[in-house]
Amino acid sequence: MRTQVAIIGGGPSGLLLSQLLNREGIATVVLERRSRAHVLSRIRAGVLERGSAALLRHAGVGGRMDAEGLPHDGCYLSTVQGMFHVSFRDMVNAQVLVYGQTEVTKDLYAAQDAIGATLIDGAEDVALHEVDGANPYVTYRKDGEQRRVACDVIAGCDGFHGISRQTIPASVRHEFERVYPFGWLGVLSETAPAAHELVYANHPRGFALASMRNARLSRYYIQVPEGTRPEQWSDAAFWDELRRRLPPELAESMETGPSIEKSVAPLRSFVCEPMRHGRLFLVGDAAHIVPPTGAKGLNLAFGDVHYLFEALRRWYRDADAEALDTYSDRALARVWGAMRFSWWMTNMLHRFPEQSDFDQRMQESELRQLVTVPSARTTMALNYVGLPY
Amino acid sequence: MRTQVAIIGGGPSGLLLSQLLNREGIATVVLERRSRAHVLSRIRAGVLERGSAALLRHAGVGGRMDAEGLPHDGCYLSTVQGMFHVSFRDMVNAQVLVYGQTEVTKDLYAAQDAIGATLIDGAEDVALHEVDGANPYVTYRKDGEQRRVACDVIAGCDGFHGISRQTIPASVRHEFERVYPFGWLGVLSETAPAAHELVYANHPRGFALASMRNARLSRYYIQVPEGTRPEQWSDAAFWDELRRRLPPELAESMETGPSIEKSVAPLRSFVCEPMRHGRLFLVGDAAHIVPPTGAKGLNLAFGDVHYLFEALRRWYRDADAEALDTYSDRALARVWGAMRFSWWMTNMLHRFPEQSDFDQRMQESELRQLVTVPSARTTMALNYVGLPY
Repeated sequence: MRTQVAIIGGGPSGLLLSQLLNREGIATVVLERRSRAHVLSRIRAGVLERGSAALLRHAGVGGRMDAEGLPHDGCYLSTVQGMFHVSFRDMVNAQVLVYGQTEVTKDLYAAQDAIGATLIDGAEDVALHEVDGANPYVTYRKDGEQRRVACDVIAGCDGFHGISRQTIPASVRHEFERVYPFGWLGVLSETAPAAHELVYANHPRGFALASMRNARLSRYYIQVPEGTRPEQWSDAAFWDELRRRLPPELAESMETGPSIEKSVAPLRSFVCEPMRHGRLFLVGDAAHIVPPTGAKGLNLAFGDVHYLFEALRRWYRDADAEALDTYSDRALARVWGAMRFSWWMTNMLHRFPEQSDFDQRMQESELRQLVTVPSARTTMALNYVGLPY
Repeated sequence: MRTQVAIIGGGPSGLLLSQLLNREGIATVVLERRSRAHVLSRIRAGVLERGSAALLRHAGVGGRMDAEGLPHDGCYLSTVQGMFHVSFRDMVNAQVLVYGQTEVTKDLYAAQDAIGATLIDGAEDVALHEVDGANPYVTYRKDGEQRRVACDVIAGCDGFHGISRQTIPASVRHEFERVYPFGWLGVLSETAPAAHELVYANHPRGFALASMRNARLSRYYIQVPEGTRPEQWSDAAFWDELRRRLPPELAESMETGPSIEKSVAPLRSFVCEPMRHGRLFLVGDAAHIVPPTGAKGLNLAFGDVHYLFEALRRWYRDADAEALDTYSDRALARVWGAMRFSWWMTNMLHRFPEQSDFDQRMQESELRQLVTVPSARTTMALNYVGLPY
């Protein structure tokens, strides 16, 4: 088989890139190791930056998002001193859209199916070949048979554990990493959300987040020690602990119910430089991971999709390689900005194992500055709604 | 002897408080352990916030400061990627004034002498008594003789190592502290400053600061490991290392010369809560220490002087105790803001012993945000020129 752009990984980034390219008449093949059902079962992020929403609309998949997504004008932050609001609308005249990654993925599958895109799932043992040269190709195994896709370029959208990044020789890869000494225990429940917008809570017992997917589907998180397994937490224990950490005015009245999903996610910051090697371009989690604080992961991946799509369009349409040649630098400039924001949010909101009373006060002072200094709220809002492409 | 306000410590805070009170007809006695010559020999801070300058003018000691001080419209920050300017004037329409603490102290001595204030130096074994009651008093030894000052209130302006804070029972004191794992090696030299404003440099080899006292007196600092002694650094070695860390465009052309003072300062953040116990009020370093990054130490002390002066004036003039009763809360609210700023500047600019490549990038990204996001510069400028009283 031959295509123009081979896309490794059929998650939201790979599908969105494929959709954007197909609409420009650029041929793609998407290879996904898991089944479609598995991809759709992943519970992930739920907040779309304005740029991400615009990109989905540009790809022709914004209809249901705009009908069902919940626009949020801001978010709440809380400390033991009280809860306060940061208005993105007042500060930077922008919103974010709450619309789950699962729904985005569903919409992308439907759109790709409608235009007859080539999505191959259950593709095992994917390997990338000759990415240094002008004729790269990809091999994989499906139904016990070895197959091959020849292509012009390869987009590595296969996540942190995927093969794409590993294909770049270690000698030219520089990896930056911080692993945070705690995790997030998340619960999904069919209950009304505690608040109409997200509530990020700094509490001496640990961080908590009240979030949602829609008006009858809540998503809550509490910070837990490294190595915690979800089975260690009963629903009752989870709700008790969550109530202790959320502002009392919310905790008292919040609806609770059985968890329909419960899992623990680690927190990590990771960047691989460069994001391009020959004809291979890394996109999203394949090149960088952010902790979930601030909801940057999916949005950062879509930023990469934007840069790579624009670069490929110019390359195929105008025979102009400049944007492809600068893809890594352009994507990384934005990546490091979002890395900083996620790191700042994470540091400001979590309880660290060795945290002193002084450190606790510094977190509270940082949050207090957001209450008292409008320009500090503006900076946070600009980052939250998304740095420009 | 009897007075209204006994002031422990004859550094700039004690002298300024005394000067302000005397001008309102409130009697003071200032007790200083060291000689006047010793106090004047201390090389300390050199940057006055606008509020500090206004307070000195209000005390009638702004004349020489306004004639000889150097107004600075901003400062420079530098990383290995380059140097950039943060304009306080553009961002918040304000300046700071470079005028050395030694000069401030000289002016205050002269003003106090001119009005015949009671300044007692060489006061040994100072002790505070009955600060819980309505009739506190202070004892000390001078010229081998035990003496006593009865008073209404005591202002503890005697610094971090002074007796005042220790007088508050440990059971009601809450102390917050962070000691940074490095120091600043400072050199004073009779050379033209490297730049017309301060230059704060983040460098993988460690922090550096190019500062000045006047047009022919430069003050430079480099970050050094904990425990470094000034004798370990020759002048030549200091200039070499400074040049490596400053932006090349400054390092190449900078004037060097013999050091006329060379010393190592530790970096510490410290706060004592509360700042009031009965009739004892802590002021400045007696209650809190900031690392020198951002030049907040003297300015924070002058903020306390402002609050305590206003509170005592209302108490004596209007028999209104409310401002005295809330002194600690009001002063601490501002203290924690400046603590946060100094901690942020210190964290952003120094090389920490365990610093990873990721941490280095976070510092550079934080600095990069100042270049690219105007509201981030505004927040920095607001803090640098001084939070309002």
